[in-house]
Amino acid sequence: MSGRAPERFSINQMTVKQLSIPELVKACLELGVRNAGLWREPVQSYGVEVAAKLFRDSGLTVTTLCRGGFLTAIDPAERALALADNRRAVDEAAILGTDTLVLVSGGLPAGSRDLRGARERIADALGELGPYAAERGVRLAIEPLHPMYASDRCVVSTLAQALDLAERFPARQVGVTVDTYHIWWDDRAPEQIARAGAGGRICAFQLADWTTPLPEGVLNGRGQLGDGSIDLREWKGYVEAAAYTGPIEVELFNEVLWARDGREVLAETVGRFAEHAA
Amino acid sequence: MSGRAPERFSINQMTVKQLSIPELVKACLELGVRNAGLWREPVQSYGVEVAAKLFRDSGLTVTTLCRGGFLTAIDPAERALALADNRRAVDEAAILGTDTLVLVSGGLPAGSRDLRGARERIADALGELGPYAAERGVRLAIEPLHPMYASDRCVVSTLAQALDLAERFPARQVGVTVDTYHIWWDDRAPEQIARAGAGGRICAFQLADWTTPLPEGVLNGRGQLGDGSIDLREWKGYVEAAAYTGPIEVELFNEVLWARDGREVLAETVGRFAEHAA
Repeated sequence: MSGRAPERFSINQMTVKQLSIPELVKACLELGVRNAGLWREPVQSYGVEVAAKLFRDSGLTVTTLCRGGFLTAIDPAERALALADNRRAVDEAAILGTDTLVLVSGGLPAGSRDLRGARERIADALGELGPYAAERGVRLAIEPLHPMYASDRCVVSTLAQALDLAERFPARQVGVTVDTYHIWWDDRAPEQIARAGAGGRICAFQLADWTTPLPEGVLNGRGQLGDGSIDLREWKGYVEAAAYTGPIEVELFNEVLWARDGREVLAETVGRFAEHAA
Repeated sequence: MSGRAPERFSINQMTVKQLSIPELVKACLELGVRNAGLWREPVQSYGVEVAAKLFRDSGLTVTTLCRGGFLTAIDPAERALALADNRRAVDEAAILGTDTLVLVSGGLPAGSRDLRGARERIADALGELGPYAAERGVRLAIEPLHPMYASDRCVVSTLAQALDLAERFPARQVGVTVDTYHIWWDDRAPEQIARAGAGGRICAFQLADWTTPLPEGVLNGRGQLGDGSIDLREWKGYVEAAAYTGPIEVELFNEVLWARDGREVLAETVGRFAEHAA
């Protein structure tokens, strides 16, 4: 791989989590990648301010920070902790210079079977966090996760549900993350992307392919672009028809990719992006 | 366990697949279970006519036959084979005395990324199979499967999609199967159950609970009633409000349950049904 990666390509840090932050920056510069989506834990370990300076000085754009959320707790103390942690996540996003904090909403509290109630508690939390984020130039980007995560990670399973939540708040406070891995099966998702675009609520667009068999726990089986069942170019078309012209992040959680050389995986990912989505 | 199981309780054969057909019948009689949903493969191995006679002579009602379907092939020869096999499944259902053949529609053909096309091929197949089934007193019951099966088992992922397909045909030919495991995450499912009921299209109602972590391949992790995240009584309420008064099948695919004594699992399942759904 030489020359420049496609301009809108952004590498989500999780795709190549075997790379340290300086290694990630170096590989991006060598491969002509101009954008990266970051995760809180590795950034915190490295130092938020130091990481922000490194990306800024390297001319790299931070496209998103992953992730806030986990806002479904019933217990008041647990709930207060979650809100405080989300305010810190907003602060970190602002320091890193990204306007998008991706939210994974959280699953059912232990012993609860009340999806509707959990979704309402997310709305309550957005009401508290939205103004705080907007004051700092950050938008909360609700990410619907695949329904297979509904009980333990995210009770928001469709783009329609995410928009039903987001639209209760101003678009400068709350939007959505569109990730092909989570919504590709949903025949209503194209019309919901149009709805999101019309409302100015598409904060982030992420790509991953769908491959089977799913691994135990179903977390780390996201396919490299082109290896699976998703027509990525079709979904890019829906998002572009909805007037989204921002970065396109590739976010893969994949044990096989993590076991390989990170720079090589990044180069491969740039190539797959060019082939399947550019 | 003694006395009679709840009248509407039906045991799907797969829940206790460690039992042979005579063992299943014996356990049902001992535990006062009056209904069973059967699977083609074990019934074929035992002999369809002999099995039919055994259930009939024992006074047991066969509530469904699982399963037809796998109707998404593009290749004409493969397609003709699938249609022929589905006609045989209809014949077997008629012999067993059940009016319901559950359909698992099939996934994407190898190399295809066209969910919409696959769903259209299912509609074409229903057009051929529906009249054949109705002439034999059998209804084709499209079962939406959880979206995590969209690529490899069933491109019909929601009750709304299943009804969009079913409603192209007369209700005496094509209906739907409502299974809590597959639709519990879907906030639109309650209104779709009402739609199905209004159209007289609820052919079968099945229960399984949702437990995590999901096992590799995500096939055999269905939870025993009460062990998971689904409010089973709430879903039973939706189906009853839609005027469904038929049998309620418990269908669990679960390695842990399969490793135990089958009669004991059946007794436990009757007890859980009484506790969580009766």
